Amino acid sequence: MIGAGNVAWHLSHALKNASLEIVQVFSRRMNKAKELGLAIEAPFFSEIKKINPNTDLIILAIHDDAIHKVAHQIREIVGWETPIVHTSGATPSLDTSEGLEGIFYPLQTFSKNKAIDLHEVPMCIRGSSTKLEKELIELGEKISDHVTIISDHERAVLHVAAVFVNNFTNHLYSIGRDIVNEENLDFNLLHPLIKETVDKLKFSDPKEAQTGPAKRGDEETIKRHLDYLNDKKQWQNLYSLFSTLILKQTKKPKEN
Amino acid sequence: MIGAGNVAWHLSHALKNASLEIVQVFSRRMNKAKELGLAIEAPFFSEIKKINPNTDLIILAIHDDAIHKVAHQIREIVGWETPIVHTSGATPSLDTSEGLEGIFYPLQTFSKNKAIDLHEVPMCIRGSSTKLEKELIELGEKISDHVTIISDHERAVLHVAAVFVNNFTNHLYSIGRDIVNEENLDFNLLHPLIKETVDKLKFSDPKEAQTGPAKRGDEETIKRHLDYLNDKKQWQNLYSLFSTLILKQTKKPKEN
Repeated sequence: MIGAGNVAWHLSHALKNASLEIVQVFSRRMNKAKELGLAIEAPFFSEIKKINPNTDLIILAIHDDAIHKVAHQIREIVGWETPIVHTSGATPSLDTSEGLEGIFYPLQTFSKNKAIDLHEVPMCIRGSSTKLEKELIELGEKISDHVTIISDHERAVLHVAAVFVNNFTNHLYSIGRDIVNEENLDFNLLHPLIKETVDKLKFSDPKEAQTGPAKRGDEETIKRHLDYLNDKKQWQNLYSLFSTLILKQTKKPKEN
Repeated sequence: MIGAGNVAWHLSHALKNASLEIVQVFSRRMNKAKELGLAIEAPFFSEIKKINPNTDLIILAIHDDAIHKVAHQIREIVGWETPIVHTSGATPSLDTSEGLEGIFYPLQTFSKNKAIDLHEVPMCIRGSSTKLEKELIELGEKISDHVTIISDHERAVLHVAAVFVNNFTNHLYSIGRDIVNEENLDFNLLHPLIKETVDKLKFSDPKEAQTGPAKRGDEETIKRHLDYLNDKKQWQNLYSLFSTLILKQTKKPKEN
């Protein structure tokens, strides 16, 4: 396991719980390597040259911008045949010409101190050989009930969509919290509403489930809200842009 | 109960389940009045002049733009002393000079075919007299565990915030779905991620929980995503605006 951040942490625990052996844990930061190593009872190290080439799989769960560089360094030590996979949604695949490589991407957002049942998490898999891909699927199925083969292009598309539904949604929560906190109101008042918005996805298309002033074409309320946001120009811009998009979607003839 | 839409439907059922009597159900559309009336075993009608003035409370759960007009019509029939409340987050309070009035606003999004436990839903209350306010609190507590007194200004603020965390979030889900569907990918792949984004709110400030390319300042990924959205200018604008806001928040010194 290369990396000791949130993804490495959750993945290592899930693999260990599935009775798989983590041969080594590496992190450039020794304290991080130690923390994870001790937690899953695996040897840990912080010098890349100490990597043990005698392993079935090397998993890179590190920062996106380090993936290709670190993969190249490891490749020089372990040789062509040891598969190296990375766990990133955003990063293109490793260079196949350098050796066996693949993708082992859990489509989820991880926080270290919050347990996640990986069985519920889609594992997106790709391997540069049929044999490796089959092995990665088998590995994925040990920790997840939702293993899916995904091309680099599909992964890139999923990642764009994930940014909208996860990162941007989270920022909307942040704005909502700022708005109510500024008036000394409790953000928890909005929690049931937030939860219900998600629950509705299980049984209806979000287009059909859309509600609110823009959906109703309620210009008076929209104007009141824009006035309220007058000293927060960027939130006001965001409000206008969303309202335009929702209004446009509402007016569009229904797709078949 | 004036109205037979989603809010009227859920509120009527909750009140009936709390052993309260719904004296009458009114809707301009007879079929809607009948449907709700039969469901909760209450008389129903579609002519406003047939309203029974002999009731403790009149609840307006109708379209925002009809609230003040309909309240005025009803007031002329029932007189000053029968309290009229409305259930809207967006609409200013009724005219106190016309009689006893108040707010009975369940802070939630309702779909007719989806059951909601109102006990979990914040009931936002206001009454034009202390006695009425007390009665509305008692009524609210029969159907909800989260009754809170809220001024018109606070309600307006909550509603702006609700538009961000509910309506706009839902539109982000809609965009996410369009993006993955266009590539024949399954939107359900994103569901665990969406759910986790919400679950995190329970134990962390969304600012702290923010992740993604903008948060990391990963300009390469942002550029790739903007390129991908090149023929969807409005989504591209939304992406840029969110990235700017998240980047700005990240760079800001931490608040105490």
